[in-house]
Amino acid sequence: MAKSQLKDFNADLSEWFNDVVLKAELADYAPVKGCMIIRPYGYALWEGIQSFLDKLIKEKGVKNAYFPLFIPIHYLQKEKEHIKGFSPQLAIVTIGGGEELTEKLAVRPTSETIMYGMYKKWTSSWRELPILINQWCNVVRWEKRTYLFLRTSEFLWQEGHCAHLTSKENMDMVLWALDAYEKTYNDLLAMYGIKGVKSDAEKFAGAGSTFSLECLMPNGKALQSATSHDLSQNFSKSFDWTVQDKNKAKVYPYQNSWGLSTRSIGGLIMAHGDENGLKLPPLIAPIQVVIVPIPGHATALKLAQTLNINLKKKFRVNLDTTDGETAGFKFNKWELKGVPLRLEIGDKDVSENRVTLCRRDTGEKITLPLLDLDKKIKELLNTIQKSLFAQHKKFTDDHTFTVDSYDEFKKIMATTRGFIKAFWCENPDCENEIKKDTKATTRCLPLGSKEEEGKCIHCGGVSHHRWLFALSY
Amino acid sequence: MAKSQLKDFNADLSEWFNDVVLKAELADYAPVKGCMIIRPYGYALWEGIQSFLDKLIKEKGVKNAYFPLFIPIHYLQKEKEHIKGFSPQLAIVTIGGGEELTEKLAVRPTSETIMYGMYKKWTSSWRELPILINQWCNVVRWEKRTYLFLRTSEFLWQEGHCAHLTSKENMDMVLWALDAYEKTYNDLLAMYGIKGVKSDAEKFAGAGSTFSLECLMPNGKALQSATSHDLSQNFSKSFDWTVQDKNKAKVYPYQNSWGLSTRSIGGLIMAHGDENGLKLPPLIAPIQVVIVPIPGHATALKLAQTLNINLKKKFRVNLDTTDGETAGFKFNKWELKGVPLRLEIGDKDVSENRVTLCRRDTGEKITLPLLDLDKKIKELLNTIQKSLFAQHKKFTDDHTFTVDSYDEFKKIMATTRGFIKAFWCENPDCENEIKKDTKATTRCLPLGSKEEEGKCIHCGGVSHHRWLFALSY
Repeated sequence: MAKSQLKDFNADLSEWFNDVVLKAELADYAPVKGCMIIRPYGYALWEGIQSFLDKLIKEKGVKNAYFPLFIPIHYLQKEKEHIKGFSPQLAIVTIGGGEELTEKLAVRPTSETIMYGMYKKWTSSWRELPILINQWCNVVRWEKRTYLFLRTSEFLWQEGHCAHLTSKENMDMVLWALDAYEKTYNDLLAMYGIKGVKSDAEKFAGAGSTFSLECLMPNGKALQSATSHDLSQNFSKSFDWTVQDKNKAKVYPYQNSWGLSTRSIGGLIMAHGDENGLKLPPLIAPIQVVIVPIPGHATALKLAQTLNINLKKKFRVNLDTTDGETAGFKFNKWELKGVPLRLEIGDKDVSENRVTLCRRDTGEKITLPLLDLDKKIKELLNTIQKSLFAQHKKFTDDHTFTVDSYDEFKKIMATTRGFIKAFWCENPDCENEIKKDTKATTRCLPLGSKEEEGKCIHCGGVSHHRWLFALSY
Repeated sequence: MAKSQLKDFNADLSEWFNDVVLKAELADYAPVKGCMIIRPYGYALWEGIQSFLDKLIKEKGVKNAYFPLFIPIHYLQKEKEHIKGFSPQLAIVTIGGGEELTEKLAVRPTSETIMYGMYKKWTSSWRELPILINQWCNVVRWEKRTYLFLRTSEFLWQEGHCAHLTSKENMDMVLWALDAYEKTYNDLLAMYGIKGVKSDAEKFAGAGSTFSLECLMPNGKALQSATSHDLSQNFSKSFDWTVQDKNKAKVYPYQNSWGLSTRSIGGLIMAHGDENGLKLPPLIAPIQVVIVPIPGHATALKLAQTLNINLKKKFRVNLDTTDGETAGFKFNKWELKGVPLRLEIGDKDVSENRVTLCRRDTGEKITLPLLDLDKKIKELLNTIQKSLFAQHKKFTDDHTFTVDSYDEFKKIMATTRGFIKAFWCENPDCENEIKKDTKATTRCLPLGSKEEEGKCIHCGGVSHHRWLFALSY
């Protein structure tokens, strides 16, 4: 658990990432290739995300439900782009109860098709719209190269699936979901991100348009952190699903779907990590304050026990009384696990009615009187939460480049990387060439981008917007 | 939605059950045979159960985690009884990412084997015990005959999996889980049940012993409502998993697993139903109070809106202002959905500063002044919760028969059914014969049953305990 055992954060982020995920006991590799085990400390992060986002979802009037894991193949085939996009990634059940199945079943890669057949069954009139449904579940997309949290063959997520009478209401919901994701990242995970609309090449299989939140990682790579899709009438038409409107005319409902997955935990780990391990924002941290009485100090232990009881009423607290570990070992252990505040107590502190608090984010040590300790801890946690967000925003701003020459574009991609704002003519061929040359892809056209006259960074053709480019996960 | 549309509760409970599940929009049949869709109103019940039980689990120090959906077949084979028990029910993935898999993967029917391989990897010393892990997930057990909620090929559950150094600690956890389930049924679902240990024929595949909570349904059939298994060292030995104890000796950990599933919702529906539909206990009811202003009454609508805002602060409230439905239609609709209290308001009530509350459980109508309405509602919800439990307990007591003759046993099973307490010699042949003759199986040996001298109800052989028999779901 010594610091030197952790791989170098700055030298190779992905090596560090795997190392910290395993050593902080966030997750482990499963015996099934490409799958992962989310260990209690990692799962507590997911529970924190669920709790925050589920509240927003419920406040919006969206209700949770559960649809089956298995989707008959012919269902998936109903929307042509959809099956084309997902079929290379399917896990398929061919045997059930000892017998070969007459229709093979896909393990859901996403639930559009299994849900919308039911939506059709349940509705006949505009009165039954909107349908506002979400589910928290596991999905499977077979992956060749996998990374813990960031890309696994099975992952956990929520998928919201709503249907509306009008295109306007539908787009309002698409953007509401995007805002809810932004709020979750900003306020809970202390991560900054850029919202925007995807290019045709990058959009969801079956969507009219896809919106995403893109977050920049310390190695200059972009993480697509959540997506919200305007499905338009693509699926309702494929399912031949109509309802009667107020004038008794048959209309195809407008639909949207939106998802945030356990990938978010991967982003959280990287965005705030450093050479000593995780740095968890206080609001999501499973342990906000760890109390470490110096081993062998008897009165310190007693005070630590009292403080543990008192502080537990207001914060998520852990008292570390593990035998056989030095103080230094314990400090490193909790730094690795990213606990925002460490409360150190020695016998001398007890006699002087004080304790020492150590901030994980800055390493700063603060000696404090016992009086009003809880108030001070609350303030500090609040400060750390804000400071981590400010740091991530500053990092993103500092690594966002507005570029007008292709040479500069290529130079950035070959060195620091980051977000590049550049004109693009919106021709998929140019997008593809840029990717070949630099590995950068369009991440999104940021929302609120104003229309400008410009020349495509690649072909020099007429362009109207600066798109956001980056190397993506 | 008229009352007459619902199938007769007393004539055929299973017909009524399917009917009410579909009409109250709790669930629907999925396009995949044997699977179900849990609709928002039904899923809210599951969320209520999760929230109650998860709190108990966390208070006990058990932490949530997530293990993979897929289990390599050779893992399942490690415990011989386990694979024998589950192999006829497996759904098997043979294709992943477009390729035939070299090792086929079972969709988890339960997670003992996938978890315990990791437990072995994570531990080497007694210091790392106990392991206290739970997961909330979906599981698949292929079923030929399925019933909504009660038996479906895919269902949702929690599965707790703990490992301890000693047999005593292990058994304490087995019984703790059983008590947590009893508390969930009694206090949240207002259902009475009998705790006990299973016979060898009825125990879990791979367990040393299985404990269950058995609840009696209105048709005299028993529902196994939750189970807790003492796995002893069966799995640790199969996995060759040892840890060093304090004396540096290698010991096989003792293990337990325990689960409660969406089947509990099936029990809840039946236990409290009647000819008008569901009767939900207030603590689990997604809507505790429905406010129905009489359609067309303008001042009543205004008061209803004000009450809706105020009462929402304390209760789960729904205001029904749906157009085009008569008051009677609305009353039936909410009775069907089992809302514990209906608050009716007409214009005349407004002028007299009163409202009418109607209890779903008794049909009683109570006219009340507006003053202190929230206090009165709280009292009434409390009364209804207790009354529903008392009724279910009374029903169970009234249908529990202590029987000493096989003729009487057979007569009961051919008429009212119910729980039968009868001596059994604990010979599996007798158990099997009794099942053949009467369809009754041993449900459990109730905890705390005192040892008595008796004669087996079937063979007349020496018996020491009265076992609990019933026809089971």
